[in-house]
Amino acid sequence: MALERINQVNDIKKIPPEEYEQLAAEIREFLIEKISRTGGHLASNLGVVELTMALHLSFDLPKDKVIWDVGHQAYTHKLLTGRKAGFDELRKYGGMSGFPKRKESACDCFDTGHSSTSISAGIGLVAARDLLGGDEYVISVIGDGALTGGMAYEALNNASRLKKNFIIVLNDNNMSIAENVGGMSEYLNGLRTNEVYTNFKSGVEQSLNRLPGGAHLANQLKKTKSGIKQLLIPGMLFENMGITYLGPVDGHDIGKLLDVFHKARRVKGAVLVHVLTKKGKGFAPAERHPARFHGAEPFDIENGLPRNKRKKANYQDVFSTCMVKLGQRHEHVAAITAAMPDGTGLKRFKNIYPERFFDVGIAEGHAVTFAAGLAAGGMKPIFAVYSSFLQRAYDQVLHDVCIQNLPVVFAIDRAGLVGSDGETHQGIFDLSYLSSIPNMHIMAPKNKWELSDMLKFAVEFNGPIALRYPRGEAYDGLREYRKPVVYAKSELIYEEEDIALLAVGSMVKTAEKVRKNLKETGYSCSLLNARFIKPIDTEMIRELSREHRLLVTMEENVESGGYGEKVLNYAAAQNLPVQVLKIAIPDEYVEHGNVDSLYEEVGIDAESVTKRVIEKYIIGLSRSDVPII
Amino acid sequence: MALERINQVNDIKKIPPEEYEQLAAEIREFLIEKISRTGGHLASNLGVVELTMALHLSFDLPKDKVIWDVGHQAYTHKLLTGRKAGFDELRKYGGMSGFPKRKESACDCFDTGHSSTSISAGIGLVAARDLLGGDEYVISVIGDGALTGGMAYEALNNASRLKKNFIIVLNDNNMSIAENVGGMSEYLNGLRTNEVYTNFKSGVEQSLNRLPGGAHLANQLKKTKSGIKQLLIPGMLFENMGITYLGPVDGHDIGKLLDVFHKARRVKGAVLVHVLTKKGKGFAPAERHPARFHGAEPFDIENGLPRNKRKKANYQDVFSTCMVKLGQRHEHVAAITAAMPDGTGLKRFKNIYPERFFDVGIAEGHAVTFAAGLAAGGMKPIFAVYSSFLQRAYDQVLHDVCIQNLPVVFAIDRAGLVGSDGETHQGIFDLSYLSSIPNMHIMAPKNKWELSDMLKFAVEFNGPIALRYPRGEAYDGLREYRKPVVYAKSELIYEEEDIALLAVGSMVKTAEKVRKNLKETGYSCSLLNARFIKPIDTEMIRELSREHRLLVTMEENVESGGYGEKVLNYAAAQNLPVQVLKIAIPDEYVEHGNVDSLYEEVGIDAESVTKRVIEKYIIGLSRSDVPII
Repeated sequence: MALERINQVNDIKKIPPEEYEQLAAEIREFLIEKISRTGGHLASNLGVVELTMALHLSFDLPKDKVIWDVGHQAYTHKLLTGRKAGFDELRKYGGMSGFPKRKESACDCFDTGHSSTSISAGIGLVAARDLLGGDEYVISVIGDGALTGGMAYEALNNASRLKKNFIIVLNDNNMSIAENVGGMSEYLNGLRTNEVYTNFKSGVEQSLNRLPGGAHLANQLKKTKSGIKQLLIPGMLFENMGITYLGPVDGHDIGKLLDVFHKARRVKGAVLVHVLTKKGKGFAPAERHPARFHGAEPFDIENGLPRNKRKKANYQDVFSTCMVKLGQRHEHVAAITAAMPDGTGLKRFKNIYPERFFDVGIAEGHAVTFAAGLAAGGMKPIFAVYSSFLQRAYDQVLHDVCIQNLPVVFAIDRAGLVGSDGETHQGIFDLSYLSSIPNMHIMAPKNKWELSDMLKFAVEFNGPIALRYPRGEAYDGLREYRKPVVYAKSELIYEEEDIALLAVGSMVKTAEKVRKNLKETGYSCSLLNARFIKPIDTEMIRELSREHRLLVTMEENVESGGYGEKVLNYAAAQNLPVQVLKIAIPDEYVEHGNVDSLYEEVGIDAESVTKRVIEKYIIGLSRSDVPII
Repeated sequence: MALERINQVNDIKKIPPEEYEQLAAEIREFLIEKISRTGGHLASNLGVVELTMALHLSFDLPKDKVIWDVGHQAYTHKLLTGRKAGFDELRKYGGMSGFPKRKESACDCFDTGHSSTSISAGIGLVAARDLLGGDEYVISVIGDGALTGGMAYEALNNASRLKKNFIIVLNDNNMSIAENVGGMSEYLNGLRTNEVYTNFKSGVEQSLNRLPGGAHLANQLKKTKSGIKQLLIPGMLFENMGITYLGPVDGHDIGKLLDVFHKARRVKGAVLVHVLTKKGKGFAPAERHPARFHGAEPFDIENGLPRNKRKKANYQDVFSTCMVKLGQRHEHVAAITAAMPDGTGLKRFKNIYPERFFDVGIAEGHAVTFAAGLAAGGMKPIFAVYSSFLQRAYDQVLHDVCIQNLPVVFAIDRAGLVGSDGETHQGIFDLSYLSSIPNMHIMAPKNKWELSDMLKFAVEFNGPIALRYPRGEAYDGLREYRKPVVYAKSELIYEEEDIALLAVGSMVKTAEKVRKNLKETGYSCSLLNARFIKPIDTEMIRELSREHRLLVTMEENVESGGYGEKVLNYAAAQNLPVQVLKIAIPDEYVEHGNVDSLYEEVGIDAESVTKRVIEKYIIGLSRSDVPII
């Protein structure tokens, strides 16, 4: 077993070349076995086994710096840098992260999670190296999907000015998470697929010198899909930007990879190495369904099927069904995704209304301004996007949608704690960053029926409006509470006195448990479903303050700028005679782990909340001499 | 006079072609005369006189849609669409905006302000048109500088998929606001400058067919600056992305412009028309110093010098001097700008420490992650950026800097109301969007000496830290108050009782006036300079609550998520026996106008604040029976 001999960084250099293939096979076996138990990113990791091995063989880690764009493809890198044991607790609370983390290893030089950051970070490390007199290599590994993100292009534009070595590895699997889109994808396809291409590899000059037969060749090749231009000048787009282009190279042939990195080391300035890989390589189900094995739940190795069968619908399933209905009812409804048609549940809409469906690539900024354009042109766009990814379009929401008060609907998925993806993916800032934007409106549904009702409301609303809902299983309790959604109005579910729980979206379910606990302990307790986070239902807050001593706001968002602060501020401005206790996520990043552990960790699980409510209530009673807010 | 005959949209079509040149000259004269009185964007507008005329002659406004990227170059467009009279009150409070505004004219189809949005918005309008069965043309006019913004590239990547007409006009003046940077700039330069180029204009195929002499030609041309590749395949970079390329065309030759637009109309799908223009064209001082005439103050037409001489230093001057000193003292200090070396005051640093200065182009997202990379590599980067532009890098701050807790300094310029540029440029959200980010720290200086002290503090601080200061004249009062900057500590300037003003940065000056007013009316009043907005100085707030009945927070930021909410939340959580009145900008966009008018409009001028403080204080006294927060 070759893998047994790898226990720390650079151990791979002791493996004789004739065992490389064997090692790659063992790594794949290891990854498939581990991920089948823990879940995790499988397809992308199986695609880069040889590439990672070649990088570790060609460079000197941790001195040389490898930055993994997005970062979920760094499992082999972790395996080769002494973290084999970590895979048993992969992405579990307190266990190894599924992404590179500086605090986890000296070989992880820059944390990633969101797409298209690696070239920018790499240029920073290169500039620091050159200013501080270092001589290490800096290598950014970026996928073809991540190249649709504008920031990658901003960085490429700057990379051209570098005088010293910087290596960009384009890990091209002809697919990011979803089908790749746009001109760049077509361009890469041209480079990738054309067989004649390799004959011209040696570059422009040579190609031209051969061209006395060129005119004929031109006519012949003009008919090929990618066109003659690509053929003549490989990597021209990159070369045009001042970046040396090497490739394409078979990303599963270690010998060829070692050769190309050997060449790349000697290039002055920025060099792009174009590597062709196959997602899911070596595991048939993942090769066939790379999207399903993007972020996989635990599965059966025999057939690739999930170990645990889902019983209930996810919010994404509900959203999917609603979108199909809305598409049917309103011909002006259009749907937009930034490379997440599967994750968001837009695939069915795409299949039924392809002309009204837009996958713009990993380009959230463009997606939002494109939506603004659609709205200005008379359509009703719905942008379905994960909460943490909408962060990348903050200015476009503020500047392009809200200043013009355009009717764009933001369907904010993965809002709240997402679990195993950790810090970079927690959707716990949207209430804060959206609610300080004028003209914006924000809702959150308590259960699956309310998601449907709110989506209908949003489509008929004439202005920017967001609804946020969590990852995973849709809550199907409280079905009997389904009053029509009314602008800026909350929904009173249980009406008692003394303590009122004001819960946002996903926290209504938790609040039910808290209320049960409180009732069992002898407290009287109302439960309000906030529904609107912006604007808040001031009339109801005023009413509640009459019959209750304590208002408890509950939200799956950071405290700063969230719902609780709005309620407290209103109560204070109106001198309402009531205390406010805010239950929210503290001012810290929340690491990976299963969502229930994380709730406990940050203190928003039912038990912790119950305890804090009782404490606060008792203190309030005992302090009747001081102002009770 | 041809201009006299132009009073509404399409009047230009009645002007006979032989008068076009005359009209262009009159428009220039008009713009120079008006802007010399009101101030405004001169250089960019003088550059696009003929281009705008040609667009209006070639298309049918308002049916056809022209989107002006950034938008400060739309003066001729305004002039040709019935807004001649508006120029007397250009950018004044209640007067005409300096940017396109849908509410101002049906000919303004999409509001702009920030860079690189026009292609995204244009694709949205195109998609809506095609879905709704329209046949109008959509034209996005974008500068070469704006092409360094990644969002433009995200949009180009999507434009390639359009089946129907979409025209992108690349207004190439070889210079955005500052010197243009990077690979794209070099690329355009290649297209622009090469004379042989026009011989090959007819396209790839023809070029190749001529190539039996190609090998020789290749050798000959290889020596030219732009290289042979450009020559063979004009606009290859765009063509590679699936976009038809036309040009380059002399942007001051109306005949040629009309020809090229005639061609562009017939192209199916996306077409890019490359137009070469000269900034400041027709006004010698602006041609010589386009940066100075980018956003000009009122000037003397004779010599181009400003009418009003500045008496005091700007915050930008102070920042400039500090940066030079810091550069000298700390060899690890590096400075970054996103195309604003002049505006931010980094030019001197650039001249003295060119190797530690980085202008990344209009690419704020990249700038922040690049800074994170520099910091991870051991440097101490300072990113000088306008408040409203940092909005574009919200996720990079959150995801790339703050999760890793990297020591990046954000020097946030133009924080607060900026005045005549209006909604899109007001820097009134930074306290909100930054303070909900874990690990972030925020300061604001009360005067010019404190800016210097805080910058020094920030450079020595080991974590992400921002300091925000306003546009324009630096406050030089309160010189005697210069206690060392201490982490999370405020500065008590006047200590009395009853009312305490807690002012953030620029508002300390206003608070002094408020205090004077209050004292004259007989109130006792303390004044606290907050210094730290995150974290707030809780110990001081606790102390103040003992001696005062009313705490008044004052900030030039929206209320939601700002400093006042933090103070109120702390007071409430601690049951402090004190009222809190928050003075901040309400939840609305603030239009253009001079800053003093805007202060009054939003109620944060000294008189308004005084009035509100007294009201609140009196209500508080009369309501001693109810809780007083």
